[in-house]
Amino acid sequence: MSFREHLEEICKNVDGAVACSLMGVDGIEVDTHVAGSGDLDLKSLLVEYSGVLRSAKDAAEAHAAGGVAELAISTEKLSAVVRIVSPEYFLVVALTPDGNIGKARYLLRVTAPKLKAEL
Amino acid sequence: MSFREHLEEICKNVDGAVACSLMGVDGIEVDTHVAGSGDLDLKSLLVEYSGVLRSAKDAAEAHAAGGVAELAISTEKLSAVVRIVSPEYFLVVALTPDGNIGKARYLLRVTAPKLKAEL
Repeated sequence: MSFREHLEEICKNVDGAVACSLMGVDGIEVDTHVAGSGDLDLKSLLVEYSGVLRSAKDAAEAHAAGGVAELAISTEKLSAVVRIVSPEYFLVVALTPDGNIGKARYLLRVTAPKLKAEL
Repeated sequence: MSFREHLEEICKNVDGAVACSLMGVDGIEVDTHVAGSGDLDLKSLLVEYSGVLRSAKDAAEAHAAGGVAELAISTEKLSAVVRIVSPEYFLVVALTPDGNIGKARYLLRVTAPKLKAEL
């Protein structure tokens, strides 16, 4: 499966998913599947969230809590679940606020090792 | 119920909870209940996580995604769930990595309005 197919597969199987992206921790996207976005500038938001991920990594490492595995941010209009794939890359799913976060977390967890093997 | 009793109640009812804290978004704690910590400097880590919360708020607001309601960070040694109580305060539960994040999210969601009424 190509990167894009993995991302599509996640969107298809998570209720409320609007986009799934494989990104560098520097905020540069590798590939994105957009299932439906509404009025938000999703891609810019996900780039900003890579900055949030970096601050979480820095905070955790500074206090010996180990590497960050997962990050979830829920706002009034959008939820996002981020899963680390490798030290350089992460997967992120954006969902509507009533989307299935549990399913998103599960699918990211099982998909991340498959993507890692292909990177 | 006092703040402390709410925090104790959350720790008691979440499998794997090691601490629950009511904090200012500036990182200054109002009250904390520690149920068991292991070798981590939990309080310093939670202060750092308030910085992560601020970056998430800034990112979401800059992209019209609305206010941040919840943030969850999972590392190798510790998970943390943060719930906004008011623009100035948040609740955070720290859990062991195998702790019940779903229960923590639920209890924070129902406890936050009670604490808000008392602030």
